[in-house]
Amino acid sequence: MPKRVAAFGEVMMRLQVPGHDMLSQASTLKYSFSGTGVNVASALARFGHTGILVTRLPLGPLGDAAAAYLRKLGIEAEFVLRGGNYLGLYFLENGFGARPSRVTYTNRLESSFNTSPEGTYNFEGIAESIDAVHFCGITLAMNDGVRGHMINLAKEVKGRGGKVIFDCNFRPSLWGEKGHSAARPHYEEMLRLADIVFMNEKDAMFTLGMVSTAEGREERLAELIPAVAKQYDITAIAGTHRDIHGDNSHSLRGFLFKEGRFTFSERLTFSVYDRIGAGDAFASGIIHGELEQFEPERTVNFAAVAGMLAHTVAGDTPMASEGDVFRAMESTIGDVER
Amino acid sequence: MPKRVAAFGEVMMRLQVPGHDMLSQASTLKYSFSGTGVNVASALARFGHTGILVTRLPLGPLGDAAAAYLRKLGIEAEFVLRGGNYLGLYFLENGFGARPSRVTYTNRLESSFNTSPEGTYNFEGIAESIDAVHFCGITLAMNDGVRGHMINLAKEVKGRGGKVIFDCNFRPSLWGEKGHSAARPHYEEMLRLADIVFMNEKDAMFTLGMVSTAEGREERLAELIPAVAKQYDITAIAGTHRDIHGDNSHSLRGFLFKEGRFTFSERLTFSVYDRIGAGDAFASGIIHGELEQFEPERTVNFAAVAGMLAHTVAGDTPMASEGDVFRAMESTIGDVER
Amino acid sequence: MPKRVAAFGEVMMRLQVPGHDMLSQASTLKYSFSGTGVNVASALARFGHTGILVTRLPLGPLGDAAAAYLRKLGIEAEFVLRGGNYLGLYFLENGFGARPSRVTYTNRLESSFNTSPEGTYNFEGIAESIDAVHFCGITLAMNDGVRGHMINLAKEVKGRGGKVIFDCNFRPSLWGEKGHSAARPHYEEMLRLADIVFMNEKDAMFTLGMVSTAEGREERLAELIPAVAKQYDITAIAGTHRDIHGDNSHSLRGFLFKEGRFTFSERLTFSVYDRIGAGDAFASGIIHGELEQFEPERTVNFAAVAGMLAHTVAGDTPMASEGDVFRAMESTIGDVER
Amino acid sequence: MPKRVAAFGEVMMRLQVPGHDMLSQASTLKYSFSGTGVNVASALARFGHTGILVTRLPLGPLGDAAAAYLRKLGIEAEFVLRGGNYLGLYFLENGFGARPSRVTYTNRLESSFNTSPEGTYNFEGIAESIDAVHFCGITLAMNDGVRGHMINLAKEVKGRGGKVIFDCNFRPSLWGEKGHSAARPHYEEMLRLADIVFMNEKDAMFTLGMVSTAEGREERLAELIPAVAKQYDITAIAGTHRDIHGDNSHSLRGFLFKEGRFTFSERLTFSVYDRIGAGDAFASGIIHGELEQFEPERTVNFAAVAGMLAHTVAGDTPMASEGDVFRAMESTIGDVER
Amino acid sequence: MPKRVAAFGEVMMRLQVPGHDMLSQASTLKYSFSGTGVNVASALARFGHTGILVTRLPLGPLGDAAAAYLRKLGIEAEFVLRGGNYLGLYFLENGFGARPSRVTYTNRLESSFNTSPEGTYNFEGIAESIDAVHFCGITLAMNDGVRGHMINLAKEVKGRGGKVIFDCNFRPSLWGEKGHSAARPHYEEMLRLADIVFMNEKDAMFTLGMVSTAEGREERLAELIPAVAKQYDITAIAGTHRDIHGDNSHSLRGFLFKEGRFTFSERLTFSVYDRIGAGDAFASGIIHGELEQFEPERTVNFAAVAGMLAHTVAGDTPMASEGDVFRAMESTIGDVER
Amino acid sequence: MPKRVAAFGEVMMRLQVPGHDMLSQASTLKYSFSGTGVNVASALARFGHTGILVTRLPLGPLGDAAAAYLRKLGIEAEFVLRGGNYLGLYFLENGFGARPSRVTYTNRLESSFNTSPEGTYNFEGIAESIDAVHFCGITLAMNDGVRGHMINLAKEVKGRGGKVIFDCNFRPSLWGEKGHSAARPHYEEMLRLADIVFMNEKDAMFTLGMVSTAEGREERLAELIPAVAKQYDITAIAGTHRDIHGDNSHSLRGFLFKEGRFTFSERLTFSVYDRIGAGDAFASGIIHGELEQFEPERTVNFAAVAGMLAHTVAGDTPMASEGDVFRAMESTIGDVER
Repeated sequence: MPKRVAAFGEVMMRLQVPGHDMLSQASTLKYSFSGTGVNVASALARFGHTGILVTRLPLGPLGDAAAAYLRKLGIEAEFVLRGGNYLGLYFLENGFGARPSRVTYTNRLESSFNTSPEGTYNFEGIAESIDAVHFCGITLAMNDGVRGHMINLAKEVKGRGGKVIFDCNFRPSLWGEKGHSAARPHYEEMLRLADIVFMNEKDAMFTLGMVSTAEGREERLAELIPAVAKQYDITAIAGTHRDIHGDNSHSLRGFLFKEGRFTFSERLTFSVYDRIGAGDAFASGIIHGELEQFEPERTVNFAAVAGMLAHTVAGDTPMASEGDVFRAMESTIGDVER
Repeated sequence: MPKRVAAFGEVMMRLQVPGHDMLSQASTLKYSFSGTGVNVASALARFGHTGILVTRLPLGPLGDAAAAYLRKLGIEAEFVLRGGNYLGLYFLENGFGARPSRVTYTNRLESSFNTSPEGTYNFEGIAESIDAVHFCGITLAMNDGVRGHMINLAKEVKGRGGKVIFDCNFRPSLWGEKGHSAARPHYEEMLRLADIVFMNEKDAMFTLGMVSTAEGREERLAELIPAVAKQYDITAIAGTHRDIHGDNSHSLRGFLFKEGRFTFSERLTFSVYDRIGAGDAFASGIIHGELEQFEPERTVNFAAVAGMLAHTVAGDTPMASEGDVFRAMESTIGDVER
Repeated sequence: MPKRVAAFGEVMMRLQVPGHDMLSQASTLKYSFSGTGVNVASALARFGHTGILVTRLPLGPLGDAAAAYLRKLGIEAEFVLRGGNYLGLYFLENGFGARPSRVTYTNRLESSFNTSPEGTYNFEGIAESIDAVHFCGITLAMNDGVRGHMINLAKEVKGRGGKVIFDCNFRPSLWGEKGHSAARPHYEEMLRLADIVFMNEKDAMFTLGMVSTAEGREERLAELIPAVAKQYDITAIAGTHRDIHGDNSHSLRGFLFKEGRFTFSERLTFSVYDRIGAGDAFASGIIHGELEQFEPERTVNFAAVAGMLAHTVAGDTPMASEGDVFRAMESTIGDVER
Repeated sequence: MPKRVAAFGEVMMRLQVPGHDMLSQASTLKYSFSGTGVNVASALARFGHTGILVTRLPLGPLGDAAAAYLRKLGIEAEFVLRGGNYLGLYFLENGFGARPSRVTYTNRLESSFNTSPEGTYNFEGIAESIDAVHFCGITLAMNDGVRGHMINLAKEVKGRGGKVIFDCNFRPSLWGEKGHSAARPHYEEMLRLADIVFMNEKDAMFTLGMVSTAEGREERLAELIPAVAKQYDITAIAGTHRDIHGDNSHSLRGFLFKEGRFTFSERLTFSVYDRIGAGDAFASGIIHGELEQFEPERTVNFAAVAGMLAHTVAGDTPMASEGDVFRAMESTIGDVER
Repeated sequence: MPKRVAAFGEVMMRLQVPGHDMLSQASTLKYSFSGTGVNVASALARFGHTGILVTRLPLGPLGDAAAAYLRKLGIEAEFVLRGGNYLGLYFLENGFGARPSRVTYTNRLESSFNTSPEGTYNFEGIAESIDAVHFCGITLAMNDGVRGHMINLAKEVKGRGGKVIFDCNFRPSLWGEKGHSAARPHYEEMLRLADIVFMNEKDAMFTLGMVSTAEGREERLAELIPAVAKQYDITAIAGTHRDIHGDNSHSLRGFLFKEGRFTFSERLTFSVYDRIGAGDAFASGIIHGELEQFEPERTVNFAAVAGMLAHTVAGDTPMASEGDVFRAMESTIGDVER
Repeated sequence: MPKRVAAFGEVMMRLQVPGHDMLSQASTLKYSFSGTGVNVASALARFGHTGILVTRLPLGPLGDAAAAYLRKLGIEAEFVLRGGNYLGLYFLENGFGARPSRVTYTNRLESSFNTSPEGTYNFEGIAESIDAVHFCGITLAMNDGVRGHMINLAKEVKGRGGKVIFDCNFRPSLWGEKGHSAARPHYEEMLRLADIVFMNEKDAMFTLGMVSTAEGREERLAELIPAVAKQYDITAIAGTHRDIHGDNSHSLRGFLFKEGRFTFSERLTFSVYDRIGAGDAFASGIIHGELEQFEPERTVNFAAVAGMLAHTVAGDTPMASEGDVFRAMESTIGDVER
């Protein structure tokens, strides 16, 4: 049965150099609007739920364009507020082969979202109307104001019996010099509130400071994730291991730890068209499986294939419907369909 | 010696989303005009023959644009009539890797070509002026009016000693629920008139309802194709086996059955840029070899390489000249030529 | 106070040649989705109401793209159904100066909207949820099925005390040879149900067959519009007189006839960027004024300026907010604002 | 009755900066292929004749692209030969208002056309197959080889009773320092062979060195054109007077002097989109009228309107059909037609 | 004799929606880099001087692209420093006719330029190497740090006998609520250092708070400008009066007050393609005339024509060379030059 | 320590069909400006030196655009002269897989560079101001005038103690029928003047006519390069061996022969985006290492990685900075950096 799921997060404008040119070579940019919350809310809408975004956009043409874009993605915009002055932007230059892609940000701390004062959002009303809420570690890195909003909304939802979902997503450049140690208490606070969490063994080791005696990444995963689930009383933890190959292809294997047991997806290997946002597609797949009470095997394979498909589409935001994912789970690579 | 070869078939407008975006993401389309007959007539013109199209386009800007495009391709347009109201259109979204390409049609049954009444074409005059005529199974799927035109033209050509060429090309979506069984009598009628036919063992089994006791596709081919040639008194039957690989490459192997003997091309493996229309390039290569009385080995390899090159060019329509094909038959992959 | 207003009408795909090229010259098209109902629902959403569209789109990529586009425009899509096979398309070639623009349609009678069977829409549910409904003469021209839907929905709305709005919009090419006389009984049926009507003296004369003894168009308007209002018991009738000048500028003067009195807007003269859809912007302005109970002077000037602004924006669909219209009503042409 | 008309002239590649940018600002170019002969042959094809081009293109991709473009324009390409090494190119930067457009040439003297040796063309065969042939002063400016071809072809055509048409078109930059005096003997030779000539009083004064005692341009025209017709025994002389206004509009008035009498077209004023090639459209209109034996009034108005329409279309080459010209002769500026 | 002239100012990235679409409609942007200092340094380079920019750009791809763009414009980049984190951006939506253009800024106060600490620039070294330096009121509006840089550089230049140029350019949105009164002391400080000043009577009245008893703008100009020159001991004051017409054309008339005497340019009326940056072109023309010691008549007409030409070119930055301006001063609107 | 390095060579305009279309299919071109000298001067500027170009461009828009482009690349343009009439152009059609790329030239012998008369350049002044000068075999192929400039400049530089660098680059199509034997004396003259030379065993065998008794290319290299170094008294000889694979990837291995010893880089295998100009990137890397007195291992690996990165960037001209190359030398293929 479709649920109402909100994501709390910033909307950013993505300004991408077309093709494989660098900013010094080109003269045009393609733009779209995205963010972890946008990606998750949009993906869940494509899976049949009501995907809601809780955010704040500036008044004026940039905010208008962002709002129109969110609607186009199928996101329910009732809690998309307008106010403040700026929208965060980032520039994306696609790499090629041996040349990596580059992302350049403007000052997102000045954005409407990141400067929203206390009382901006009606968290009670929001919590009242939803079944689950999604947060991520990028939002957590912003500032105390935003962190306060996160905790308040999480508590309101939890208090009403809704699910709290947290993606541990850690961006080193956002936490400054002290890095993981600065982030740790905030992560711990969110983990204590969360029912479903996205992370892998690296997050446990670096962000939470846990120590592993194992050697390979699979072994560390097996050791640390159950410990995290126990310590913070988390229902389900999911994540991926990714390998990047030289020929523009990646491999992805998802896991879901639940009721004391790990379930792994197949290891998928595929050509990559646009890597950004694929982690959010995986997360959305897990959320969908959990909300729909799929068997763990089905959930984690659905999520992995959703993640794979997100690598084949331009832009940050997953475009695959539930049907598209199911079709790709069953199929081999096919000829043109007509 | 160059021949005059006509193809009878519909011209459609191809509306392609640029790059790998979906229709929901993009805002522009590239357009061109194509069709099996267009592709064959154009390819034969590039091989040095007079490639003639027998078709009907609407009056007005769309028909004008289609006619100009045909001329640009080098097609002799003397028998391109104007009348009726509509042009068939199709939309093409390019897939990427695990995401398949998608084709969406408009209602082509209302097109100028598919609504041309009896007496539209001067088949005697056309037959008088040509050495061979090409038909395909897509056209055969349209309606009784079009099928009547096909039979009449084939008979006029055959009656004057010209060659009749028929490509069995079967599109399930065009034949409705009864599929192969609805199509069978029409295919049989065409096969009885044909000198050169394009098909493989699947067409024999599914469209013609023949039964094979063999297991592999090569074995079934060896069993069924000679039987078809015999039953319908066909001079030459040619076709391909295609394999689709995970890394955006395909393999192609052509065969030519003639005078009781199979000849196979090398198995070519190559990267694919635009798959649509490549079968027509293979067919054109076979026709060229037969018209020019190449040795079977030369004919089938010429056709396979022509098919391979058609995968490297945007658009449905082959662009390789006879010289280009010969060069590619001899060469390894080369550095920039300058 | 914002109202809930539905428009019933077809969504078409607009395929426009960029710049001033002809289809025979260019190789790309820009696409968008529009229609009178789309334009009115979107404009009313920008004026602060809930703009709802009642329509039917095909399943598949074209329908998905149309639905996403409607959401982007801010249209409430609850009653946008999916089913049937085709979407109506039209091609637009922009003229320049002495060379007129050209529009070429595909067969829209086969569209999902125009083939929707009885019982497709839940008219009771729709009527229950709205304050007013908008219809237009283009939809009326389609076929008996569509006309049946119109009458049923209009009656349901009227029966619940909602307002029925009808734009007389007459497209000769859609009515075939008998033209106005074929259309008349259908127009009369709609007029008897309507509260607010868009038309001018030409509609009265040609479509309704009324006779004027006056000479100038203003005089005929003054004679015929009150007669129409009386005969069909219409609360408000509005429309425009347009003049087209040689230098790419038009003049527009709106009128509103209500409670026995004509009110005229200023005669506005302005440069034209994209003429299509400007009449719908005028109509939306009148509807907005009526729903908000503006004084007639304010209503008709608001509508005329909304119409003028729609000529300055690419695409069929008005983009001006209520604030934009008020600002343009007050301002002279300004320098860059920054 | 449609005629077969050949034009002898060079095909050049036009490389145009899109919009109004300069070469130093932009990074892309639009390309097409044109030339006076191309323009005249194409326009005559659109008026219903067989428009033939006699020219020489290089082998290789540039020549292929040019040949395909000519076919697209509807030009009969039987006498388009291939050989030599280069294609002439020119770059076009569109001006805006007070900033003039700029044209920059590459070395066209090295082109396949301008280096074609004696015996390249089969002038007897060409002359045998046509009713009239068109030359222009730009071709005459190239070199002795090309001039030899012109004289030979003109004589062959004249000798077989065909019409010789000559456009006096004088480009100062092509004749070097001595300018008009260097050009004069070559112009005189062509005029003695010509039946229909395009020029105005300036050509008579500067190129032919005639002296006028009159003052205004109309007066000088009235004095000099009859003298030219008499001296060189020319059946018809036609030309235009153009005025350029500040607001991106031009005025054009055509004349036709024939059987001792001047006929003038209306003075047309219109907005200009692409000025290049409009003179060729006027000339083609005159040729059409003469070939079809229109009354002089009809001929000169047809030609002037054809010239006007050519200003409204991108590219050098007129795109208006005979029907388009007749419609524009009758119409006022209209609203969108649909 | 060419001089070395520096401009001190911020470089901003201009992100422009192509054509006349709004941000909510489009999906691509054109980008370039500009600013008053950029425009003046570039224009002076085109007039034959060494145009130097003193500014600070961030490290990374945006700064690299800006630096490359400045070099392309011909600006001497020796004093373009790198450091800090951000580049100021603005979005530009072109209006059309009755719909005004809109500019949306990001937070430029966080830019590398506006956060450059004391000691960033080697003002002595800069002053040593130049003949004149240009400042503007936009830079003056930023913050105390930037204002400190301005005063220091101005004093260093003046102390070494160089010219100080100041453009009073007032942007209300940058000064906050107190507006003119907050700005006044800073303007007065700059005016006391300046030799050449750009302003008109409005700046005198609003920014400097002077009172005029006259009525028309010409009369006020005549009263106030001499008073300003006297009070602040300014050698030359120049400026323009602009009128905006309804048909996309503007009129411009420049003045130069010097040695107690006003000199006025012709009043120029012209079509506008891109209005932004045209004031800087006028200023550059005056600076050029003063540096080259033209007669005042020649200077002010050169400047007005330079300003006019800047309206005909895309982008903020003037592209006309000294020769282009002289040609335009002499010419009427011309046909294509080739 | 940064050096001042000049390259002597022609600037050509590169006109590239976007994507993988052929000239017969497309209608737009991307343009840029390049040449071996451009590539080397630009690459050295990115490595921290002053990269100077000695060349001659035409006056007018094409020359202006080329000059602006060179400045954008960071090239010092003091010795970029203006004069002559034409700029060399070449058209590039990208191949795909089995279809090779094609390059079509215009007549570059008529270019400003190739027609520069004796005395055009002030070679003494140039030699005075630089530390090293780069020449290549393409320039050597032009004509005696250009060869005279090369010899004069090389002698002036050598005479002042500067380094002479020569890239043996042999283009068969430029030397006509006699090919290598026509080229040999000119190559020998340059080699006698050169300190650093780029070549491999093929150049020794074919251009210099040396005979090898060895079989594999490595063995021939080992035999011939030391002989060349000895015979012509060359300090350092460097070059690459390239392998082209079927899947759009190449392998590259560089060598540096110096002080009697070969040093080889790792064999790098990588995907190719734009192959043109990559040899110049390798050469620039060697020059940088030699100027900075890197150890041979570091030099040849730096050069090979610089060459590899140049294959990942659009356009002929390397865009990697010294830091980019060092980063790529250390890294494995990475995920998006942000």
